[in-house]
Amino acid sequence: MVEEQELLDFKTLMQQGDETQLRQFCINTQPVIIADYVADIPREEIWYLLRHATPENRAEVFSHLSPDVQLDLVEILSRYELISLFTHMSPDDRADLYKQLPEERGESILPALAQAEREDIRRLTAYEEGTAGAVMTSDYATIPPHLSASQAIEHLRTIAPDKETIYYAYVVDERRRLMGFVSLKDLILAPRGRLITDILQPEMVYARVDEDQEKAARKIQKFDLLALPVIDHNDSLVGIITHDDAIDVITQEQTEDIEKLMAIAGRHEAGAYMRTSAWGHFRNRAGWVAGLAVLGLVSGFIVQSFEGFLMQFAILAAFMPMLADTGGNTGSQSASLVIRALALGEIKPRDAMRVVLKEVNVGIYLGILLAVLAFGRVMLMGGGSTIPEGVMLVNIATAIATALGLQVITATLIGAMLPLVVARFNRDPAVIASPALTTIVDISGLLIYFYTARYLLSV
Amino acid sequence: MVEEQELLDFKTLMQQGDETQLRQFCINTQPVIIADYVADIPREEIWYLLRHATPENRAEVFSHLSPDVQLDLVEILSRYELISLFTHMSPDDRADLYKQLPEERGESILPALAQAEREDIRRLTAYEEGTAGAVMTSDYATIPPHLSASQAIEHLRTIAPDKETIYYAYVVDERRRLMGFVSLKDLILAPRGRLITDILQPEMVYARVDEDQEKAARKIQKFDLLALPVIDHNDSLVGIITHDDAIDVITQEQTEDIEKLMAIAGRHEAGAYMRTSAWGHFRNRAGWVAGLAVLGLVSGFIVQSFEGFLMQFAILAAFMPMLADTGGNTGSQSASLVIRALALGEIKPRDAMRVVLKEVNVGIYLGILLAVLAFGRVMLMGGGSTIPEGVMLVNIATAIATALGLQVITATLIGAMLPLVVARFNRDPAVIASPALTTIVDISGLLIYFYTARYLLSV
Repeated sequence: MVEEQELLDFKTLMQQGDETQLRQFCINTQPVIIADYVADIPREEIWYLLRHATPENRAEVFSHLSPDVQLDLVEILSRYELISLFTHMSPDDRADLYKQLPEERGESILPALAQAEREDIRRLTAYEEGTAGAVMTSDYATIPPHLSASQAIEHLRTIAPDKETIYYAYVVDERRRLMGFVSLKDLILAPRGRLITDILQPEMVYARVDEDQEKAARKIQKFDLLALPVIDHNDSLVGIITHDDAIDVITQEQTEDIEKLMAIAGRHEAGAYMRTSAWGHFRNRAGWVAGLAVLGLVSGFIVQSFEGFLMQFAILAAFMPMLADTGGNTGSQSASLVIRALALGEIKPRDAMRVVLKEVNVGIYLGILLAVLAFGRVMLMGGGSTIPEGVMLVNIATAIATALGLQVITATLIGAMLPLVVARFNRDPAVIASPALTTIVDISGLLIYFYTARYLLSV
Repeated sequence: MVEEQELLDFKTLMQQGDETQLRQFCINTQPVIIADYVADIPREEIWYLLRHATPENRAEVFSHLSPDVQLDLVEILSRYELISLFTHMSPDDRADLYKQLPEERGESILPALAQAEREDIRRLTAYEEGTAGAVMTSDYATIPPHLSASQAIEHLRTIAPDKETIYYAYVVDERRRLMGFVSLKDLILAPRGRLITDILQPEMVYARVDEDQEKAARKIQKFDLLALPVIDHNDSLVGIITHDDAIDVITQEQTEDIEKLMAIAGRHEAGAYMRTSAWGHFRNRAGWVAGLAVLGLVSGFIVQSFEGFLMQFAILAAFMPMLADTGGNTGSQSASLVIRALALGEIKPRDAMRVVLKEVNVGIYLGILLAVLAFGRVMLMGGGSTIPEGVMLVNIATAIATALGLQVITATLIGAMLPLVVARFNRDPAVIASPALTTIVDISGLLIYFYTARYLLSV
């Protein structure tokens, strides 16, 4: 996201090493922009630059760096510097870093932190990756229900410097159970003496700590919220997810969906392409590709078992690639539409019948179109092939067209049904990767192809 | 998103038609939830229910309905009801609806609106779909630079009821040129008498009206903003994009990317799966599928021109499906990784050489792995096939393994390079759909396969 010229200017600045200018640069540049600048320079230089920033800004730049860079930097840092970093980072970023630290390193700094911070880290790191609990922060504002509007504003003013957002304040009872929330806009608009109990919005949207992070993020999107409260099993408020973390979760889940769709394993983390080594990429992709190649054995067996037939009708071999591609394409199309609609909550597994009916319908239209195309194709270019005596080209064209039509209908149906079946068993439908589907419909396609051809050509 | 039981309760409520209860239901239920409830019921019933809501709530429920339902409803509405709806909708939703209205309907209501509203509609509908100008709203708060902090808070309190957000206030000069912004948090924390000019943050992130909507939304994500100001060609502030619209833009662009990746045309609108008819789905998918089937002619020609060779080595036909699938899989994997990294701004077209080198590396690893697998496979299961006299199975295995290895390397490289080339010409790299890629690497794969085999088997 950084322009080339600016990057050059920055590198010159670093080479000159003018302390005053570096300090000025750290003050005048937004932390996220500094993080962009330093992404590619040697780790030692990053820390050299950050020494010129205030502890707060340093912690913020650090939070914007990728996890790999963070871990590399931690190795360079002295224990004292690491403790200062931990003290100034926001609770959620700090907890994320702590989870990544080598165990002894983490334990070595814990005793140096304040009791409250230690407990905060312990609480925020307790939840499984991918849950609402793991993305929430503990930097939220609460207000007691008996305050007046003007007292509440005064209260928020006092705690504002430490809180990620004061635009939403959560009203909790003495056991921290969520009673509702007020927005700062409501407080400002309310008569000064009006009690919080009379202003608060009691109908609340919230997430449970163990809820899926994407589900929580989608609530923020649906209800246009700035933040979503997260409650534990005692209905006590334990954190909030902010709107900016929700966007990041949605982007991350999206990358994950695309990668799953293309059968790529791995950590699915944003911005990881360049940082992952070629060997890492290989490992992420090899499993599926090799597995599918093995599954492809079945296709090989089918072709082999029809070898005699194929020798007789060599023209059938010329249409095998089109059969395989078209089946894969139509199957993948309906699978990705269904997976996306499931992910956005637009359809549910219980809508299966309606989806299947719709896809059969689409499949029939597509099947007819492609059968007509294939028929024309065989009639036009089939003349060059060897055809057994007594068989007419039009018969072969009919057989290939029929097989292709059936293949398209079957592939569309399989593509739509597999994600629905997976979703019904409460698994992520995106595991129906497009390459896996391609291999599956290849098998069904070859069976349809050879049996139809053999039947219609009455061999 | 609605639970079955709640939906049943709602339908019972509608059947009973108790006016008081319906009015109560409209008051107690969040507009977005009402929109969920009514999504599937007949249009007349939707409007019957909404008559029981306040004009403000009615307009908000209406905004949450899908464009199709909105247009259907508009046909039922009287001119008077439509004008009331327009008056109460938020500026951006209103402009979106206006753009969809049949021309005479839109013109018929314009004269009944206030001058300011008419101009607002005209301004907001002036920008092309997909630009920052087309998603922005005009409901933002501005403050003059000479106010004090407490005067500014008072000012915001006065205008708050009409504004989508008062948490960011934009400071503009007399020509509406953007000087900076203050957050309500900054105002609350500042000493009461401090002047806005001393508090405002002058280093601003903004979007131009004609900037791509996704680029604008990504700025909100990157800088963790609540809203992004949009300026025109005179540097004047003309609107803002809010954080919730940014999430919607990102979700919409993601759906678009997945659909493009699977070669599905159409409007790519969120939540459109069930609403699109089977015929509509057919039209969205048929073009690409048919086009690719025609492109597949080339594969057919290649196979046909090697027909004699294939008759001699029938075993080669058995490995054609695996060759096609594996090439398609590895090519699609690298294409989707590169497309995603480009979309997230992680790599730029100028990084092409580094990406290509990395992918060649990955391709070599994958190629070796799959060549070994193929070799083993031919040795194990090749025995059943007819082999010309004088040719040993191990020679055939070597030929097939070599061809497959070369195919994987080529496909990985093509998959990585095509999106980069497209991006270099400033087009959306997502047009390199996975099905298109599959068809292209099929052609390269068959050529590699037959030439390698013929060369190594020295026919």
